[in-house]
Amino acid sequence: MIFGSPLLTRLVSLFKQMPGVGEKSAQRMALYVLRSERSAIEELARTLNDVKEHVGLCEVCANVSEAPQCVICSDARRSDETVCVVEQPQDIYMLERTGAFRGRYLVLHGVLSPMDGVGPEELRFGNLRQRIEQGGTREVIVATNPTVEGEATALYVSQLLQGLSVRVTRLARGLPVGGSIEFLDEATLGRALEGRQDV
Amino acid sequence: MIFGSPLLTRLVSLFKQMPGVGEKSAQRMALYVLRSERSAIEELARTLNDVKEHVGLCEVCANVSEAPQCVICSDARRSDETVCVVEQPQDIYMLERTGAFRGRYLVLHGVLSPMDGVGPEELRFGNLRQRIEQGGTREVIVATNPTVEGEATALYVSQLLQGLSVRVTRLARGLPVGGSIEFLDEATLGRALEGRQDV
Repeated sequence: MIFGSPLLTRLVSLFKQMPGVGEKSAQRMALYVLRSERSAIEELARTLNDVKEHVGLCEVCANVSEAPQCVICSDARRSDETVCVVEQPQDIYMLERTGAFRGRYLVLHGVLSPMDGVGPEELRFGNLRQRIEQGGTREVIVATNPTVEGEATALYVSQLLQGLSVRVTRLARGLPVGGSIEFLDEATLGRALEGRQDV
Repeated sequence: MIFGSPLLTRLVSLFKQMPGVGEKSAQRMALYVLRSERSAIEELARTLNDVKEHVGLCEVCANVSEAPQCVICSDARRSDETVCVVEQPQDIYMLERTGAFRGRYLVLHGVLSPMDGVGPEELRFGNLRQRIEQGGTREVIVATNPTVEGEATALYVSQLLQGLSVRVTRLARGLPVGGSIEFLDEATLGRALEGRQDV
């Protein structure tokens, strides 16, 4: 709440609707707007409208895109043999950064979470089974987060694709590179033991 | 970084310029924009522009205002006898909520901090000495935060007003109401001892 301007109060309440933005952050953001150059805020307002006007989701993989198909789906040099299933569009950037994956993606925009009322219909599986069947895909890597919901979603994907000649894999669980065993939780260390590899 | 849309990437970088907003928060905010109703984002964009157009600082106290003088400075029922000096506009709301203050304000928009290059010229002292002299003010309450910078600013205010027949006070330091002595830091407990009062 900022005392003295209904417009600023309105801006604070709009900022507060954003995920992860509380009252205090929203106030600080609104005061940033107040002391910023007018041209900077006009650009922000314009970009907000432009995003609503020109950005949508790729019709194939549901990644963010300014065209019907995203830059990855429309890149002929990438392989159809592997499809990586992720929770959020941001995850694609993290995976691309590794340089270790040259296949396609599917963005679910969430994970299965019955507790929060998120079932398969709420996620963007699209016509995954058909896409795998027709696209000659040989492996689906489920790169959901290593949480209960992430695991449940991975299980759902493997059931969805049952009967197809496609391998469904999960990202390895184990020691974080550069981490210290001394400070590791027992679940991760247990998974690292189970998944041990020859030197 | 969001892979696939230069517009979203631009929006993320604009959000990141706001105080307290890091890369991950900015990404989450940008994706919120993407999945929001168009009308909601248009309202946000419009409100941003409206704030730049109609909101400024009160010419007397530098509180936020949509008129030359803010709602508090233009309220004839409030007393000119006391002026409360605060760091930020948000602090006014916190003080008004107590219902214990019926005077006027001065918003500095910061604190003195030589380490960060913030001297008196960077703060909005305005013509405080003149305002106190002409307004018949009898007490200036310095309600800056209980930090080194806040204390230095309080000291500066009292020096600035030296020679005037005005009392300069600080907010009391002591036990937070409802708090537990067991978990209190020694500086606060020391101040609470020093400032002890008769029952």
